[in-house]
Amino acid sequence: MELRTDPEEFRRACEEARAGGARVGLVPTMGALHEGHLTLIGEARKRAPFVAVTLFVNPTQFAPGEDFARYPRTLERDSAACEAAGASVLFAPEVSTMYPPGEETRVHPGATAAPLCGAHRPGHFEGVATVVTKLFALAGPCVAVFGRKDYQQLMVIRRLVRDLLLPVEVVGIPTVRESDGLALSSRNTYLSPEDRRRAAEIPHALAEAARAFEAGERRAGTLVARVRARLARISDRIDYIDVAEPESLRVLGAEEHAGERALLALALRVGTTRLIDNLVLGEDSAPRVGDASPGPASASASAEARRV
Amino acid sequence: MELRTDPEEFRRACEEARAGGARVGLVPTMGALHEGHLTLIGEARKRAPFVAVTLFVNPTQFAPGEDFARYPRTLERDSAACEAAGASVLFAPEVSTMYPPGEETRVHPGATAAPLCGAHRPGHFEGVATVVTKLFALAGPCVAVFGRKDYQQLMVIRRLVRDLLLPVEVVGIPTVRESDGLALSSRNTYLSPEDRRRAAEIPHALAEAARAFEAGERRAGTLVARVRARLARISDRIDYIDVAEPESLRVLGAEEHAGERALLALALRVGTTRLIDNLVLGEDSAPRVGDASPGPASASASAEARRV
Repeated sequence: MELRTDPEEFRRACEEARAGGARVGLVPTMGALHEGHLTLIGEARKRAPFVAVTLFVNPTQFAPGEDFARYPRTLERDSAACEAAGASVLFAPEVSTMYPPGEETRVHPGATAAPLCGAHRPGHFEGVATVVTKLFALAGPCVAVFGRKDYQQLMVIRRLVRDLLLPVEVVGIPTVRESDGLALSSRNTYLSPEDRRRAAEIPHALAEAARAFEAGERRAGTLVARVRARLARISDRIDYIDVAEPESLRVLGAEEHAGERALLALALRVGTTRLIDNLVLGEDSAPRVGDASPGPASASASAEARRV
Repeated sequence: MELRTDPEEFRRACEEARAGGARVGLVPTMGALHEGHLTLIGEARKRAPFVAVTLFVNPTQFAPGEDFARYPRTLERDSAACEAAGASVLFAPEVSTMYPPGEETRVHPGATAAPLCGAHRPGHFEGVATVVTKLFALAGPCVAVFGRKDYQQLMVIRRLVRDLLLPVEVVGIPTVRESDGLALSSRNTYLSPEDRRRAAEIPHALAEAARAFEAGERRAGTLVARVRARLARISDRIDYIDVAEPESLRVLGAEEHAGERALLALALRVGTTRLIDNLVLGEDSAPRVGDASPGPASASASAEARRV
């Protein structure tokens, strides 16, 4: 595996792969890799012989006061994990090369970026859309793989690709969870042991909504209230719990009824850590929440995850 | 020459050219081609064996009340002119395929788009940046050629390409003028014979500024006043006459002094027709204004222009 920090060298590595007839798969990350990321890399490998992983803590998707400065940076470990996972090249640029002095162009997603996290993190999805457009321009991928844990991000990027006519297939991969159901996130490392225990309530709340949905409950306000009742036990700062249309992300009013599929998405603070999670009711299987204490990740690739 | 209206077919035509080892050159136009456009195509041919010309009257770069609906559409003539000029493919899509239902992503240029025409045509350069990003994504060009008549557009696109790390060389071509100095523009066809005669004052005004600059005049307010005095004779609606830094496009205050090079740019109505023109003082040669009556274009390719 090659490690590249210079954008033009990274571009050349991907160009050479394409010139040799290889499809290029792209996995954009902010590093601090966990098993969720490795699953993305594995998926990309199934779809493209040349897999480019990018590791860039993108400043424009953090609002002032967010955790840009303290976001975990673990390049050496990430590099070893990428290599073990079969990546062809890892691109870990400096901020100054991705945002050179005087740069000012921004990619604005539209309504998809407005609700949910978009309403609570001003400029976040503009930053995401801008950096992903740049990474696509550098790597020239046929396929790019993202996690469904960041469901709104996935939808914003799908919209971006369709709207800007980019020749990229966007693939979304199911959320990888710990054995107690908590979604893997680089930010989980911020949690104190007690907060980590509290955070396990999140998949319980999602599972309860899934059960209610399966039993026929469709009223958005009722689904939200059930989730809220559980999460109020662990957080006094819930950014949002919403039921939304799964493609447009239009948030349903309390009296509205969901269709066959509905996104249930939430963001909240546990201690000082902001966590997000979601489930597409009627589509995703409910998180398994059998083991109440945090343990190794439950998915099949957990051995690999522990190695990371 | 192939004519394509479907974006994916156009993409495939360019892809096949690249797969065959050809560099792709791109010339984006809104059609109603004149000799200026043919010069762009000729320049693209020098730089790339496969030249894609696009013809798309882009609705998002017109503000409400502007001339989107009446902008001249002359596909058949344009197609013949492109073929004669040596284009490899002409792409003339429908609005609904470039902006499919539900699309909402926009590319926002920054400060470069704010002054001059940006201050008078809200959303114009956002529309330009968005459609050019799409055309780049479809054609995958190595090089794209634009006219310096739309100087601010050229600078916005240069900025866009640098900022989004697009692998495209952007080439700007000097303005082609009629024998009386008027810059060629598809909008010149709107002019009544009397307005056309009046419009010839514009290159006179630019030439006067060039003479003053050459004689050492650097005060922005003085340069602007000289141009304004001449243009007030032909227009009671001058959008702007500004001296600006030629790269950042920062407009100089009246008391500021220009450097070695300075952009003099203007927009005004002659009758009901909005015309723009510019000169980079200290770099461009002044328009030749010898012949006071409108005649055939003065550049070497004028024979071709008359054929169009």
